[in-house]
Amino acid sequence: MLNQALLQPKSIVVVGASNNAAKPGGHLLSNLIQHQFNGDLYTVNPRETLVQGVPSFASVNDLPEVDLAFLAIPAALCIEAVEILAGQKKTRAFVIISAGFGEGDDEGKRLEMQLLETVLKHNACLIGPNCVGLINSAYAGVFTSPVPALDPQGIDFVSGSGATAVFTLEAGMSKGLRFASVFSVGNSAQIGVEEVLQYWDENFDAAVSPRVKLLYLESIRDPRKLLKYARSLVLKGCRIAGVKAGVGESGARAAQSHTGALASSDLAVEALFQKAGIIRCHSREELTTVGGILLLPELKGSRLAIITHAGGPAVMMTDALEKGGFLIPRLVEPVVKEKLKSYLHPGSSVENPIDFLATGTAEQLGFIIDVCDAEVPEVDAMVVIFGSPGLIPVNEVYRVLAAKMKQGRKPIFPVLPSVVNAREAIDKFISSGQVCFPGEVDLANALIKVQQTAKPEPESREQIHFDRNTIQRITDVNSEGFLKPEAVGELLDQVGIPRVKQNVVETIPDALLAADDIGFPLAMKVIGPVHKTDVGGVKLDVERNELINKFKDLMAIPGATGVLLQQMAGGLELFIGAKREEGFDPIVLFGMGGVWLEVMKDLQFGLAPLTLPEVMDLLTRLKSFPLLIGHRGNAGINISVFAELIVRVGQLMLAAPEIQELDINPILASGDEFNVVDVRIRTGR
Amino acid sequence: MLNQALLQPKSIVVVGASNNAAKPGGHLLSNLIQHQFNGDLYTVNPRETLVQGVPSFASVNDLPEVDLAFLAIPAALCIEAVEILAGQKKTRAFVIISAGFGEGDDEGKRLEMQLLETVLKHNACLIGPNCVGLINSAYAGVFTSPVPALDPQGIDFVSGSGATAVFTLEAGMSKGLRFASVFSVGNSAQIGVEEVLQYWDENFDAAVSPRVKLLYLESIRDPRKLLKYARSLVLKGCRIAGVKAGVGESGARAAQSHTGALASSDLAVEALFQKAGIIRCHSREELTTVGGILLLPELKGSRLAIITHAGGPAVMMTDALEKGGFLIPRLVEPVVKEKLKSYLHPGSSVENPIDFLATGTAEQLGFIIDVCDAEVPEVDAMVVIFGSPGLIPVNEVYRVLAAKMKQGRKPIFPVLPSVVNAREAIDKFISSGQVCFPGEVDLANALIKVQQTAKPEPESREQIHFDRNTIQRITDVNSEGFLKPEAVGELLDQVGIPRVKQNVVETIPDALLAADDIGFPLAMKVIGPVHKTDVGGVKLDVERNELINKFKDLMAIPGATGVLLQQMAGGLELFIGAKREEGFDPIVLFGMGGVWLEVMKDLQFGLAPLTLPEVMDLLTRLKSFPLLIGHRGNAGINISVFAELIVRVGQLMLAAPEIQELDINPILASGDEFNVVDVRIRTGR
Repeated sequence: MLNQALLQPKSIVVVGASNNAAKPGGHLLSNLIQHQFNGDLYTVNPRETLVQGVPSFASVNDLPEVDLAFLAIPAALCIEAVEILAGQKKTRAFVIISAGFGEGDDEGKRLEMQLLETVLKHNACLIGPNCVGLINSAYAGVFTSPVPALDPQGIDFVSGSGATAVFTLEAGMSKGLRFASVFSVGNSAQIGVEEVLQYWDENFDAAVSPRVKLLYLESIRDPRKLLKYARSLVLKGCRIAGVKAGVGESGARAAQSHTGALASSDLAVEALFQKAGIIRCHSREELTTVGGILLLPELKGSRLAIITHAGGPAVMMTDALEKGGFLIPRLVEPVVKEKLKSYLHPGSSVENPIDFLATGTAEQLGFIIDVCDAEVPEVDAMVVIFGSPGLIPVNEVYRVLAAKMKQGRKPIFPVLPSVVNAREAIDKFISSGQVCFPGEVDLANALIKVQQTAKPEPESREQIHFDRNTIQRITDVNSEGFLKPEAVGELLDQVGIPRVKQNVVETIPDALLAADDIGFPLAMKVIGPVHKTDVGGVKLDVERNELINKFKDLMAIPGATGVLLQQMAGGLELFIGAKREEGFDPIVLFGMGGVWLEVMKDLQFGLAPLTLPEVMDLLTRLKSFPLLIGHRGNAGINISVFAELIVRVGQLMLAAPEIQELDINPILASGDEFNVVDVRIRTGR
Repeated sequence: MLNQALLQPKSIVVVGASNNAAKPGGHLLSNLIQHQFNGDLYTVNPRETLVQGVPSFASVNDLPEVDLAFLAIPAALCIEAVEILAGQKKTRAFVIISAGFGEGDDEGKRLEMQLLETVLKHNACLIGPNCVGLINSAYAGVFTSPVPALDPQGIDFVSGSGATAVFTLEAGMSKGLRFASVFSVGNSAQIGVEEVLQYWDENFDAAVSPRVKLLYLESIRDPRKLLKYARSLVLKGCRIAGVKAGVGESGARAAQSHTGALASSDLAVEALFQKAGIIRCHSREELTTVGGILLLPELKGSRLAIITHAGGPAVMMTDALEKGGFLIPRLVEPVVKEKLKSYLHPGSSVENPIDFLATGTAEQLGFIIDVCDAEVPEVDAMVVIFGSPGLIPVNEVYRVLAAKMKQGRKPIFPVLPSVVNAREAIDKFISSGQVCFPGEVDLANALIKVQQTAKPEPESREQIHFDRNTIQRITDVNSEGFLKPEAVGELLDQVGIPRVKQNVVETIPDALLAADDIGFPLAMKVIGPVHKTDVGGVKLDVERNELINKFKDLMAIPGATGVLLQQMAGGLELFIGAKREEGFDPIVLFGMGGVWLEVMKDLQFGLAPLTLPEVMDLLTRLKSFPLLIGHRGNAGINISVFAELIVRVGQLMLAAPEIQELDINPILASGDEFNVVDVRIRTGR
């Protein structure tokens, strides 16, 4: 995996280097030279002795020992080069920018496999193939532009797509994003986003490591690994934001044609990000805006002052922030307001937004910021909006703003909207080391997103003990398909999930016996057909005198093999489901049942194992939450009991990997009483 | 209102002109000169004889006759200048950029009133005060930068905020937006956004008028006027997009301090935009992205081809588009796919997205576009994504793209993400007269917004005839407050809204009599307390033997003045409400009742008069719509009947302006049967 040869090489060779900077091997070399790689630099080019002033060798065979090799040669030639470099030149790290591997045809996939074997055999590490390269504090090893100015406290960025890495850097640089490292992992033959995260986590040093990580993913090869290291980093104080593209049908198709990997189901991705505390973004613009926010001091609280020289943007931003739960509280202290008023131009507004007018000065801005920082406890942070109508330079304003951003205790989020009129002043502001945002509403939406991403729970080690042997005995009855009602009942009892009294019968005498045990009125459901309701296979509130006729009706339904007799239960309809997504921990879904599930799609979900606090928090996010806790005189349910059941379902899914899918719908619940009415469990290996 | 002196002046004077371009009167003059105003230009400046080479007069008294005057002098001096100019110099149009009027203190408000009176007295027109100015084909009359290149088929833009106008121009120009005119209306003393729309509508010429209008509003002074002219323009083939800022509590406060006008309630604004067919945006970024889309040929259909040289952006865009209801259909015709394949580099994807790889050429792009235009009937339009990793110039690619955009039959939406690497090529593309977008996801979301904004219905003249006298007699019974149940019942009968049998009683004998007439079981509701349910004031399914006890219980509730006996009705709970918002036509809200209304806030709404087709369309947008039409074996309702009731409520609100608020909740409905159970009507003058 990632090693010192890759990250801090003493020597680098570019195989396939060129004098032509329009060629990857040329541009890569010129980036290494321009950004001053500090060690020995070699190239391989059979037609030159010097390439861009760097010594060139005719073949890798002729090279001296070298730590890290960049390969920009045809795919078919890469394996031999790696074999020679690793075998004879002690090269322990490779960055292969060449395409023509796993992203393409079968021959490419074979080549990639062979490449990986060669690398592994020599205990080396490999970035790519089919990637843009990487940039870190030691060298700028990409064949593309732009190369951002590096900052050891900047952003660590890893991308599964080279072009997206480039476009993201472009979008980020125009907001002043600073980077500590950029990894383009290409086909991720050996090292993917997961392994880069693992490295960052395992080598995290609270004193010096960068704390902001941005991810762009098109596939997740190892969801558990991603979860583990991302969550660990966040728990250590890092902030991570990421795009996982490829959610829909065509989206997945595009991802497939691009990285040779099938996109994972989006729900599982959502659950994974949530559990890891990764802020999920959906565009480069959003990712870089969130990245900018994360580079600034952490916003603690949701009360903002908006300081502006123009009303319009402040109004639009206020609209967006309030919609997302932020507060723009009026300033309350008359003394403070008077103080501001006396210092600002007549007509300025010292409510909040604080509007110090188009004629507002740098000095006034500095004064307002100082006051808000020290004397306005009702706000936690400031947004400063300052553009230019093109009359006078705003450099001085931006200089003061940058200075205050460094000094103040409260975070300041600068909106500099004049991307034409004040272009140079903005560039200067950025080159002084500051982040800024062109659009106030995009900033507002990104702030909301950051604020709404909950910190993850630590990895849970608690396990509910189930008797694995008993469970396996129950599920073994049928190895594929849906469990029979008796088996389901036995399983629920094992797991501690309360169910209504019930019994499956196939004859009228058995039905009469069982019914007396359950009591009247009762419910009758056909066994056999999958969508019972749709075929008229559910009879409710059945009294004793109706039992025989209804039994006959149900048994007459095509596919009927028996009838389930069930105690009638009442209360709110709840739902718990669980399913598996390849590579992910089981995903548990829950909410109210019936139309809330089917029409409103009002559900929450999480990856098992779920903890009680995690589930309690998720329950509050249900739109139907007010109904759960009791609405307008209707009794609610004890949500702790519901949460406990959800936790148990997650534990069952972990304990019984043969359960592929589980659907408890409905549970009828009222207060502390919960009765599972209908359950479907599909097993399979 | 807007006149020829304003729009096509033969002469212009800048009062308060300066040689210093950092001053408003200096920058304004230099804009007029630089952008070559074709008529006579004068200035007034007591200290100069020439200002920026233009003849200067010591006072307005010394001026020759002049059509249009720009005033950049202190507010207190404006009225006298206007009086002299209008009275002695035949000046019939004024643009007052000076601040210090209605946006400020009482003295400013008084000045603004006086200014308006002076203008009106002389039958002149006035833009401002407190505005940036205006730009049209005749002159560039703004004191700010940038002045966009003008295009007679470009965008007409009117803004209630000067700074927002500037920042919007900046955001727009970087996407290649072209403008036909820009109005900054400032305090709108005479001419506001509404009057500009009126002018555009009344002078619309299908042959030559620009068809894209952008609006930025902080207040709506005359909602009916805005609706009338915006709708009319859209029905004539224009497309209008707008931001109405100031929705929330603090938002309204910011709007107030900014333009001296209180923000309207946001729901009414939403309804107005919807009814007028205005695409509602919430940021400059969104407004200019939508503006760019509207400048391109109209997208007819929702099936897109995404043509890209990089996978990542195509995947993110596909995700966003599919979420918004667009389709990215696979190419189906094998012959077409083979044709593409044979022309593209190996490894290219000829599904959709069509990925012609990082090494794809201008020629290949042109070929793909031609094929999609002529031979792929399964797509209605194309998105082309092409950036640059910084290796080779992309000018030729962009030249081909621009040419194809002009030739093709299907719209092409260009995404040019390399805002750093390809900055110059993008600028060149834009200066060739083309629109482009930096972010694929922002474009996708704007496309969705455009697509989801329905064309407006023509203004409805149909009226349901109500007996106005009878209605007034009923509502006159109490002039303020809630109507009594008897009055409500009479009113519903008048309007043709079916209600359950009911009767209000105050004694036990009356209760027994009325109950026999209604039939058992029945419902009993206390009269007096407003929130009946919360005080236990509602008894359902009451049988004959329970009547007397329940009557006594209800009358014992504090505030009880009587008991309403009602026929029990069943079915789905529906809701219709109506309210007035100052200046707007009455707004009618509707949906399912109960938790759907209270917890899910699942409602739709529109401004009266509503037409049947309008309401039917709105009903389909309810989340609960599947329940209305019948879900999983549960009977639905006849939605035409529901729609008809909604239309009638709107008509009632129009016919009876004394009704302030109306709340029909619930209506119990099943199939064709609708029974209004509870109604509250508040009247007032």
